[in-house]
Amino acid sequence: MYRTHTCGELTIGNANQTITLSGWLQRSRDLGGMTFIDLRDRYGITQLAFNMETNATLCTEARKLGREYVLQVTGVVKERESKNAKITTGDVEIIVTELKVLNASITPPFTIEENTDGGDELRMKYRYLDLRRNAVRKNLELRHRMAIETRNYLDKLQFLEVETPVLIKSTPEGARDFVVPSRMNEGEFYALPQSPQTFKQLLMVGGFDRYYQIVKCFRDEDLRADRQPEFTQIDCEMCFVEQEDILNTFEGLVKHLFKTVKNVDIPTLTRMTFAHAMKYYGNDKPDIRFDMQFKYLKGDGADLTAGKGFKVFDDAECVIAINAIGAATYTRKQLDELTDWVKRPQIGASGLIYARVSADGIKSSVDKFYDVDTLQHWATATTAKDGDLLLILAGSTNKTRKAMSELRLLMGTQLGLRKSDTFAAHWVVDFPMLEWDEETKRYHAMHHPFTSPKPEDIHLLNERAGEARANAYDMVINGVEVGGGSIRIHDAALQSQVFSLLGFTKEQAEYQFGFLMNAFKYGAPPHGGIAFGFDRLCSLFGGSETIRDYIAFPKNNSGRDVMIDAPSLISPEQMKELAIATVLNTK
Amino acid sequence: MYRTHTCGELTIGNANQTITLSGWLQRSRDLGGMTFIDLRDRYGITQLAFNMETNATLCTEARKLGREYVLQVTGVVKERESKNAKITTGDVEIIVTELKVLNASITPPFTIEENTDGGDELRMKYRYLDLRRNAVRKNLELRHRMAIETRNYLDKLQFLEVETPVLIKSTPEGARDFVVPSRMNEGEFYALPQSPQTFKQLLMVGGFDRYYQIVKCFRDEDLRADRQPEFTQIDCEMCFVEQEDILNTFEGLVKHLFKTVKNVDIPTLTRMTFAHAMKYYGNDKPDIRFDMQFKYLKGDGADLTAGKGFKVFDDAECVIAINAIGAATYTRKQLDELTDWVKRPQIGASGLIYARVSADGIKSSVDKFYDVDTLQHWATATTAKDGDLLLILAGSTNKTRKAMSELRLLMGTQLGLRKSDTFAAHWVVDFPMLEWDEETKRYHAMHHPFTSPKPEDIHLLNERAGEARANAYDMVINGVEVGGGSIRIHDAALQSQVFSLLGFTKEQAEYQFGFLMNAFKYGAPPHGGIAFGFDRLCSLFGGSETIRDYIAFPKNNSGRDVMIDAPSLISPEQMKELAIATVLNTK
Repeated sequence: MYRTHTCGELTIGNANQTITLSGWLQRSRDLGGMTFIDLRDRYGITQLAFNMETNATLCTEARKLGREYVLQVTGVVKERESKNAKITTGDVEIIVTELKVLNASITPPFTIEENTDGGDELRMKYRYLDLRRNAVRKNLELRHRMAIETRNYLDKLQFLEVETPVLIKSTPEGARDFVVPSRMNEGEFYALPQSPQTFKQLLMVGGFDRYYQIVKCFRDEDLRADRQPEFTQIDCEMCFVEQEDILNTFEGLVKHLFKTVKNVDIPTLTRMTFAHAMKYYGNDKPDIRFDMQFKYLKGDGADLTAGKGFKVFDDAECVIAINAIGAATYTRKQLDELTDWVKRPQIGASGLIYARVSADGIKSSVDKFYDVDTLQHWATATTAKDGDLLLILAGSTNKTRKAMSELRLLMGTQLGLRKSDTFAAHWVVDFPMLEWDEETKRYHAMHHPFTSPKPEDIHLLNERAGEARANAYDMVINGVEVGGGSIRIHDAALQSQVFSLLGFTKEQAEYQFGFLMNAFKYGAPPHGGIAFGFDRLCSLFGGSETIRDYIAFPKNNSGRDVMIDAPSLISPEQMKELAIATVLNTK
Repeated sequence: MYRTHTCGELTIGNANQTITLSGWLQRSRDLGGMTFIDLRDRYGITQLAFNMETNATLCTEARKLGREYVLQVTGVVKERESKNAKITTGDVEIIVTELKVLNASITPPFTIEENTDGGDELRMKYRYLDLRRNAVRKNLELRHRMAIETRNYLDKLQFLEVETPVLIKSTPEGARDFVVPSRMNEGEFYALPQSPQTFKQLLMVGGFDRYYQIVKCFRDEDLRADRQPEFTQIDCEMCFVEQEDILNTFEGLVKHLFKTVKNVDIPTLTRMTFAHAMKYYGNDKPDIRFDMQFKYLKGDGADLTAGKGFKVFDDAECVIAINAIGAATYTRKQLDELTDWVKRPQIGASGLIYARVSADGIKSSVDKFYDVDTLQHWATATTAKDGDLLLILAGSTNKTRKAMSELRLLMGTQLGLRKSDTFAAHWVVDFPMLEWDEETKRYHAMHHPFTSPKPEDIHLLNERAGEARANAYDMVINGVEVGGGSIRIHDAALQSQVFSLLGFTKEQAEYQFGFLMNAFKYGAPPHGGIAFGFDRLCSLFGGSETIRDYIAFPKNNSGRDVMIDAPSLISPEQMKELAIATVLNTK
């Protein structure tokens, strides 16, 4: 037996017991007559004491041990003289009587501490050492707890977890599919699923009623900073439900997770239409931890800017202001920095107008054009008070909304309104069915091709398809889309119509989704579902913006696992066996 | 709202309530004045009643509905005149007042009944319809319950579920790896894991202490009747443990599963060495639901056959008997059939000797050579009594054991000793480290290259490596190996020695397992683990021999999903994008 206790459980109640521990040498302190070693395992740290006077041999041996050595010690639990209130075992130490080195360690390439000296790249290469750090392990413990509680909640509601296949069929539009050559079917390929969408719908056709799965999905796309080629979804589907049933069920899920994992009670989720979100927040996943909604000085039926000869506003489709409460103290330098920031190509504004509201009146960067009365109207319209700062952008509607959305988030951050331990969750609903793509001159499905239109908007599909709203919804927490779904089409004729709107020929639709369309002929029930990005949800619960921190063995931005050095070349024999060859594209 | 209740919950307690149900039309009976429809959903069946006298319109409408139509009905719960005790809702029926067809169905290609008329191939193609059958759904409900209870048990013991990557590195010996071309790293490939073995060991190096995962694994091999290219494992690893800790922990898991899933208390698992299993059962996964152990009439220190001039036995390395209790009634015809059976090439025996024990004495097929006294010795040695049948095979030891193992299982089946609702679980331990491969003239790892030898056998590795036993163990239930594992090597030097025994050069070992070997330099703890075949475990619990029945969307023997028609061709554009080409092997 390697241990009687873990390094995290001994307290004063164990005093005078003889115990055995195993763990890693976290640090060692040599104080002349005494040597202290902090022994670490997953559960905590326990102090080991070696006394040169009473046991010189053992103490001398202990002094030779290096960081990250694996030790097994037996000894007696004693109350410490100087207690450490920071750790649960801080009241005691072990007077060691036996010491065994279970394994030695060469010096690790970085320190295994809360704040390590290792850079990202190094820690990725030695991920197994990084995993020893409390901070990293705690993230993965959180992830485990999230998964367990997700399953507990859904199991109680009679959801069945069903494993759908990983080796599936590639679709003609599957440019982002990873593919897998089949040795037994030469020249043919499987694809890895980007989501289990069609399978979960087939489970509904199969009468499974309530399905979920915490499941790996795959997308071969150029990776932005925070994407991974393999990622995990909480994937769910229900039948005989309307949108309201899904929203209630999964609002319950996040409430359950917040309560059980973080002991936080979150209020009932508010609901916002897509149109409202775009108009007053400039994006479809507003961060509502703070207000700072858009006010239209021009546009949305208002015009508080006309007739004063300010060409920028006069030419603009809209003029949008936000009220940064208490920010009138912003210096000229800060405002110049904000101006530079909004003019960056990623944001795309042509300039920034501001107005400071103070007891002395309102001072704006457009005082030349607008008199105090007008500025006062602006202040009233934006409910700006003494000490507040109005920030104003103008231009075409979509572009200005987008830029102002970014500025709003920046100001929220700068004013400390976006705390990672504060949670604001809500639903965005009534997404449009379709998105017009200027490049290909055709509609794309905003959610996916199986999304059903709102019954009252079906008539729009024939003539003004772009206006038709879908029974589609996203869950947004702190400005992050953590989940999204829709009520699906369960009627083969409506599905055909939508495929045709999306530019599929009958043949394409048949080739790509034939088995689903066919399944719909045999009594498909009304159904709908949702999928949550599990990596993202975990990072959000953990208060981090980096999903990589919540994945045990993540890949880097080139899709490489630098620890195991994958992907890699394979042997010519293996390629022959698989009936494939490499044909490098000229670069 | 589509329903107020499911089709499985209404009882006499709901009498006179107005309720709404949704579901599928299972069957409909037209009795002149009345029409009855059985409405089915996942939870059960409820009888709907339509009365031609009181509501002719609705009744007429109901008569038009076909099998598998999706219906929504509202009506009043009434006590039935003729109750059906077989179903939980059998006391009531619904007097329907409103009927809505949610979806129509064309006639399904097979009946959705407990015993369907659909053949395997057809049911695979229309798997979504097969899933509607109670029998199929119950298998997947069992699987869900098994997964939930596995997680409950392991979570309580502080195991952490950690997701390991699916896109990993192919190994030079990875002939059975599925590979995935990397678009972002042209000419390079990921591999899909055959198991998360190295990752779970790295998690132990990373101090995770107790890991598990219910995880998909992949193996591209020619599929025997009951293998799948993608399969699921319960994969576990612990650190600071000895074999005893693992056996106890996972004996606890199966006991928990039997208790919670099947309400069966199984006794403490017995343990049997590999050597014992081979000697007395002829294989390393004995079915111990029944005894019928091998008795050596010759060999194993005995010889009750010599000196009587029977050349077959005289020339044989061993003569093995089993006692088929109560089978003296076997007719000559049955015995001839058994003889033919053991002579089939798959079994490979050259003949079968038998001896019937009865009140009249013993009659054998070798009476010419052996007198009653000798036969009586045989009966005593095998504890055969009146009414029993001795079956005897002779030849070289390994071949005879193997053939007798098959015969023993056949007799167990024929005598009804292998009931699928009886469970006998045990451990097989002390497997050899290595297996000699005559073809390649080198050792293979019996379990895998990371398995540690028993400390007391390490000295054998240098000279008599074939005799060294490993800290490896299998869990066997009803003659099926449901799980296996080992204590791993955590010492880099011992690992090098084993790699070298297995014929790896230093370079090969470095290339293939370098990151693991490297990790071992930084304080690897003693660790070990086990993996269970989850599909197999589920089928065993379900009393079936076919794992396919416990997989929602299985593939056929050619690795094809006939429902979605995968694998399939991919487009030339996609292949170019992935920098690969197909090079068909001449067939």
